[in-house]
Amino acid sequence: MSAASAARRVDPDLEVVVLEATGYAAYGMCGIPYYLAGLVERAEDLLAYPPAYFRERRGIDLRLHAEATGLDPVARAVHYVSDGRSVRLSYDRLIVAAGGAPTFPPLPGLRDPHVFSVRSLEDAMALRGLLDAGRVGRALVVGAGYIGLEMAEALAARGVSVVVAELLPRVMPNLDEPIAALVEEEVRRYGVDLRLGAGLTEVRRRGGTLEAVVDGEVLSVDLVIVAVGVRAAASVAASAGAATVPGGALLVDDRMRTSLPGVYAAGDCVAPYHLVLRRPAFVPLGPAANKTGRVAGTVAAGGDATFRGIVGTAVVKVFDLGVGRTGLTLAEAEAAGLAATATDAVGKSRAKYYPGSAPLTVRLVHEEGGRLLGAQMVGGDGVAKRIDVAATALQAGFDVDDLAALDLSYAPPYAPVYEPILLAAQAAARRREPAAPVT
Amino acid sequence: MSAASAARRVDPDLEVVVLEATGYAAYGMCGIPYYLAGLVERAEDLLAYPPAYFRERRGIDLRLHAEATGLDPVARAVHYVSDGRSVRLSYDRLIVAAGGAPTFPPLPGLRDPHVFSVRSLEDAMALRGLLDAGRVGRALVVGAGYIGLEMAEALAARGVSVVVAELLPRVMPNLDEPIAALVEEEVRRYGVDLRLGAGLTEVRRRGGTLEAVVDGEVLSVDLVIVAVGVRAAASVAASAGAATVPGGALLVDDRMRTSLPGVYAAGDCVAPYHLVLRRPAFVPLGPAANKTGRVAGTVAAGGDATFRGIVGTAVVKVFDLGVGRTGLTLAEAEAAGLAATATDAVGKSRAKYYPGSAPLTVRLVHEEGGRLLGAQMVGGDGVAKRIDVAATALQAGFDVDDLAALDLSYAPPYAPVYEPILLAAQAAARRREPAAPVT
Repeated sequence: MSAASAARRVDPDLEVVVLEATGYAAYGMCGIPYYLAGLVERAEDLLAYPPAYFRERRGIDLRLHAEATGLDPVARAVHYVSDGRSVRLSYDRLIVAAGGAPTFPPLPGLRDPHVFSVRSLEDAMALRGLLDAGRVGRALVVGAGYIGLEMAEALAARGVSVVVAELLPRVMPNLDEPIAALVEEEVRRYGVDLRLGAGLTEVRRRGGTLEAVVDGEVLSVDLVIVAVGVRAAASVAASAGAATVPGGALLVDDRMRTSLPGVYAAGDCVAPYHLVLRRPAFVPLGPAANKTGRVAGTVAAGGDATFRGIVGTAVVKVFDLGVGRTGLTLAEAEAAGLAATATDAVGKSRAKYYPGSAPLTVRLVHEEGGRLLGAQMVGGDGVAKRIDVAATALQAGFDVDDLAALDLSYAPPYAPVYEPILLAAQAAARRREPAAPVT
Repeated sequence: MSAASAARRVDPDLEVVVLEATGYAAYGMCGIPYYLAGLVERAEDLLAYPPAYFRERRGIDLRLHAEATGLDPVARAVHYVSDGRSVRLSYDRLIVAAGGAPTFPPLPGLRDPHVFSVRSLEDAMALRGLLDAGRVGRALVVGAGYIGLEMAEALAARGVSVVVAELLPRVMPNLDEPIAALVEEEVRRYGVDLRLGAGLTEVRRRGGTLEAVVDGEVLSVDLVIVAVGVRAAASVAASAGAATVPGGALLVDDRMRTSLPGVYAAGDCVAPYHLVLRRPAFVPLGPAANKTGRVAGTVAAGGDATFRGIVGTAVVKVFDLGVGRTGLTLAEAEAAGLAATATDAVGKSRAKYYPGSAPLTVRLVHEEGGRLLGAQMVGGDGVAKRIDVAATALQAGFDVDDLAALDLSYAPPYAPVYEPILLAAQAAARRREPAAPVT
């Protein structure tokens, strides 16, 4: 819908058609855990705008329950299914914004109606219905990435007994292990039955009972949530010949053009340019999805816009912890062949004497020459928007000395006089300096 | 104490003497309003470290109640008064870190013991004693800058009826008027009797009653707090010939050297380099005071360090509002002769559906060519650390397009998918573009 709205702004006379497979458009998918937890009352609250708004106020022909199934880039036509009928729609310019799709492991039993992923609003509404009806006493969450942990928190908030099974020996694979360990501690502190290095092998029905087999143990549960990852929903475009990166996301240039003439792509199905890696990367997150949509819509409609790239900034709330990351983790930097090191520091979120002040752990990842490659932060207070300083520094190409020189805000209710990120930057800068000369 | 500690780190054998006029060192002056409000229980909680820590653990000869009164830069000696005696102390290197001093207007009656400034911990303790004893029913705060408003909030939190008198026709002169107007509204919403364009002309005693004359009206009050500004406490060094900037703060280079050989200066008594103004500026705030202290101490002890400069980042809590600024206001930019304009935007602090989401107003100040000059933010939620993104952007020399391209963090509990600062940057970028071409 960002793309469609941008196209409309560029050209008020353009015919803009949107095909949407589900019954909802422009909803805040990241809000689903909070809707399930009951913090957000109605599913409709998650909509940026109701469908009628796009049709009536923006003149966008939004077709719901219309799933694209084929693309003919030569004839410039899309095939989609609506009400069981196949429809052919010709276009002058096409924007592929099919999003991400949850990965489902190829295991028996995952088609049970009480096995959910958490991406569509319809699934969320069904899940909320079960919770509201008091029909969920115990749940299994498969996957301890950020979505799995958000779901664990939401279910725990509803009084559900939660098991989380993760194949890896740690939570949050998009964080370095020492930072992830702080998150693991928090999840356990809230009584979640966290099983690491534990694989789901089967889901089955025994009488009316749903059983999940985890690491050989049979767990009776009321529902299973699968959150093991997201892949780009790029198959229709890729089948038509659009170039992709390893993993399957669509390759685009800075104007969101795919390799197919007249075909643009945006959102969670593309791999935009990563400013730290200096190559395309698949990092499916909301802000870049919105921005690439806006660029694709603007350019497709004849306007001018470019997308500079991402640095991979993300935050997540896990129970009482805020967890942020931007750029590369040490593991990611090493995997990319960079000579990287990490410096950790623990500061405070506010002046130490101010009520609510809490420890805040910062990890900076930097190249041997000092160039900042990434940051991670975890803490019980004031983490989220602090990571944005590091994101800004990454876009600026700062080294750790630049970071240590920042003139950041201070007031006892909000920050200590030495910001935790400055403490980490000073420590990182000292590591690459010879000892100060003494006269 | 930052300077002394840094000097000690460079040279473990150096003799380090600190002269401090009051009875406390290394206290968090900015915490005084929260101590008065009762959020911080004891005055000692505001100390970074107790005096004994510096003496015993850092080997620093900290002399309290020792007020420097004279400097002989040729003989390399300082004169100070202690216990009524004048003492001469010779030095190899001297660091002037005398801080800021509250401005007192030349009005009758301001020597009354119930007229306070809020800078020394001793004054704060006396004030807290009066509040704790229930002896303050009504108070006058003179000055509606950030310290005056923090004090008004603290007194209101103790149930005191507060009058604030400000000579200017608006609050917070370090914000542009439309942003300051939001703060004014908040102060009035909390029942503070705010009198703008109103000057104090006299304080007097009538019997046991303290009277303050404001704009011709006689107010009976229990105490008066004067918060009309801070000047650099640079007179001892300036009298000895150290160069100063207009206004009186000491001129220093990026190693904190004054114009006098062997004499360094740091903290609120200096005018460090301002990266946006590209000249020295007097902006007395805690973080730069600490950092310049560290540089002065390092260099004075024979080590190597530089201070790159400030951008003038500050935040303040005013009742339920967070108020942040960095760089230049539009008024400051115009006063500096820059061709500047301002772009305002109102966003949300969190996803609109997430509990606690509140409007957040952003003003960006930018040059005609697009260069970012400053930012201001006001809101009821999540303001404080957001201003740091703009501070980082200023150090990086970003223009509004760079700012609009930032990959900032998003999660419903912490941020909307379009950060308010990005909304403002996009609006600012559009103002300098021709309309998008349509093919």
